[in-house]
Amino acid sequence: MFATTPEPPYYAVIFTSKRVNDAGYAETSARMMELAQQQPGFLGIESARGSDGVGITVSYWSDLESIANWKAHAEHRVAQQRGRTDWYGGYVTRIAKVEREYEFSGANPH
Amino acid sequence: MFATTPEPPYYAVIFTSKRVNDAGYAETSARMMELAQQQPGFLGIESARGSDGVGITVSYWSDLESIANWKAHAEHRVAQQRGRTDWYGGYVTRIAKVEREYEFSGANPH
Repeated sequence: MFATTPEPPYYAVIFTSKRVNDAGYAETSARMMELAQQQPGFLGIESARGSDGVGITVSYWSDLESIANWKAHAEHRVAQQRGRTDWYGGYVTRIAKVEREYEFSGANPH
Repeated sequence: MFATTPEPPYYAVIFTSKRVNDAGYAETSARMMELAQQQPGFLGIESARGSDGVGITVSYWSDLESIANWKAHAEHRVAQQRGRTDWYGGYVTRIAKVEREYEFSGANPH
């Protein structure tokens, strides 16, 4: 559930969305998770969605070129289009350079 | 639910956590949300937590100094300590500089 990322710097894509419809969503979402992990430069992904439909997915990448390639991936583009027409009432995507990382590993190691 | 952030660059604090216990959590969480919004440099916050206890909160800030000041805030430090002893099985905090932002405002304007 926690992405195991290398020493910074690396990049994060922060995708915040409001899902208003979920017909067919789970299958495509699982496929995109699987596909993302096969892309060059992919480092990890973390995701959470509450019962109000608000979700945040953060994927981590080694560089901006990898992010651009994933955005342009044919199968991913089809999924993005379905996101706009079928699932999301709105979303914001932010691309950010991770400069620092620290963690707390409590009683439940991850 | 979407943070209304200015033109990049600005900073994001990506806080991914696994909550394993929620006694007293809701009250402190609401108070921290309220307090964060009063801090200099605060731009916005987005949060989601799934039924598995995994949560992602992303707060946005104008600069690194504002982030450091909020981290060192006395009341926030008490909450951070309770997070480690009472609520979280583990967490990762990442500090990142947002370089680009784009949004889709669908049928449900925000």
